[in-house]
Amino acid sequence: MSTVVRAPATIANVGPGFDVFGLAVDGFHDVVKAREADGVRIVTEDSIPTDPERNTAGRVALMMVEEFDLPGVTLEIGKGVPVGGLGSSAASAVAAAVAIDREFGLGLEESELLRFAAEGERAAAGEPHYDNVAPCLLGGFVIWRSEREYRRLEVPGDLGFVTVTPIGVRVTTEEARKVLRERPPSLDDVVNNLSAVALMVAAIAEGDAETFARLIGQDRISEPVRRRFVPRYGELREAAYGAGALGFAISGAGPTVFAVCWREDAEDVKTALEDALSGKCVSAIHGVSEGVEVA
Amino acid sequence: MSTVVRAPATIANVGPGFDVFGLAVDGFHDVVKAREADGVRIVTEDSIPTDPERNTAGRVALMMVEEFDLPGVTLEIGKGVPVGGLGSSAASAVAAAVAIDREFGLGLEESELLRFAAEGERAAAGEPHYDNVAPCLLGGFVIWRSEREYRRLEVPGDLGFVTVTPIGVRVTTEEARKVLRERPPSLDDVVNNLSAVALMVAAIAEGDAETFARLIGQDRISEPVRRRFVPRYGELREAAYGAGALGFAISGAGPTVFAVCWREDAEDVKTALEDALSGKCVSAIHGVSEGVEVA
Repeated sequence: MSTVVRAPATIANVGPGFDVFGLAVDGFHDVVKAREADGVRIVTEDSIPTDPERNTAGRVALMMVEEFDLPGVTLEIGKGVPVGGLGSSAASAVAAAVAIDREFGLGLEESELLRFAAEGERAAAGEPHYDNVAPCLLGGFVIWRSEREYRRLEVPGDLGFVTVTPIGVRVTTEEARKVLRERPPSLDDVVNNLSAVALMVAAIAEGDAETFARLIGQDRISEPVRRRFVPRYGELREAAYGAGALGFAISGAGPTVFAVCWREDAEDVKTALEDALSGKCVSAIHGVSEGVEVA
Repeated sequence: MSTVVRAPATIANVGPGFDVFGLAVDGFHDVVKAREADGVRIVTEDSIPTDPERNTAGRVALMMVEEFDLPGVTLEIGKGVPVGGLGSSAASAVAAAVAIDREFGLGLEESELLRFAAEGERAAAGEPHYDNVAPCLLGGFVIWRSEREYRRLEVPGDLGFVTVTPIGVRVTTEEARKVLRERPPSLDDVVNNLSAVALMVAAIAEGDAETFARLIGQDRISEPVRRRFVPRYGELREAAYGAGALGFAISGAGPTVFAVCWREDAEDVKTALEDALSGKCVSAIHGVSEGVEVA
């Protein structure tokens, strides 16, 4: 007996929704296979720690084994989500939590799965990213406020999301947070993001995909201080809009960036972004994901 | 021939939506009667300037007379909106713009009426308050971002809004802005308001009146620095929640505060707030207004 779970990549912030918005996208998935065993063991062919204490999925497993008095679990992990702003560790954490829940028939509530995945991330990575964890589990577009206050919404229209992860660039979440605390946004920037966030939600509710997409490019909290972590940020932005993108922003803490566009323009946008980085990137076209799935 | 227009009071910010949200409420109105004349003249029995250059409605009239080459207009103004956080000058500006538009058959677009009212306010008061002007004109709940980016939404459910304006307290917008610029919100406070604002809009879209109302009390941008302008702010807040309020916040720049509650609790909440100020206040129970109306 074993359970195989696929968990998608996620775009945190989604432009102006700093620490609040998250979007699940298809195309990149982590796969976790859980099988009952003695103790917790990590098996993987990817270059990630196999010590459960130092592995996000491992930390989730250790907590769940402890809390539910389980004999133990072997997790086979296949990383499909690139590292660097696409919720890679959240994907492993969510996949592990759901796989263990199913494998042992725990029947956990959504809120408990969220808690285990987020706490696993906190233990392994220093802090939980609910704006990745929640959309990864729930799919679609998520507004996150707290464990008891969040919403999942459907993204309207025929939008494509093009992600580009520059090769050989690492941004730690600590670094990305530090620069923001050193240069907090002005009141005008805050008002800009407040109105953008409010209108994005209103646009989703009305099925107005274009307004939603255009506002994604209007962030003034994260972008001004984090663009320095993205090589050729200005060129990438210009290339995206030049190729028909409706919006462009940093994904999570970066260095991944993403453009949102009509589906029919996605190939052009992807090519333009790849060219701007002279091909030194991982890139893909995504639709919206329905969230974690048991294979 | 003359045209009489009633324009409602408005609650700017509506808690977390600093400079972005505005709500039109019934119960308090400014009334403006416009009649063709030579030159611009203000007639009023209220204690406001009658020099058109120093009167918000007068500035609107001067601009419109100039722009449309009108002979002139006499505005009879009856102030019903208390001064101090309820969009009193926006009400006069909107009423004047709509009254002149109708009286002279100008057939202006919504966006033009908004511009004249806002520019009139700017000329008379130093800056435009679109978060008052827009809901005053449009009614309901408004998300404001720019002249081309705003939305009017319907407030769900059977909510009552109780406003309390302390007597003998004045807060200038300059003062209220200054303290905010001196102590801009922390990043955590910004994230708090971003998530509250996003969920308020989602709640409205879902018809979830209770979530909308509860989030009104969760502002952390304006309240921490502006509560000092409201006498007995802590006692007022406690009194409101003790009497059944769902949310409580400063209205605009204050010193008016408001509570939101189920309609059936509104009398209790109003009494509790009046008692907290030992009766030294103007208070009222409001529903949502449909905005400016031609009588």
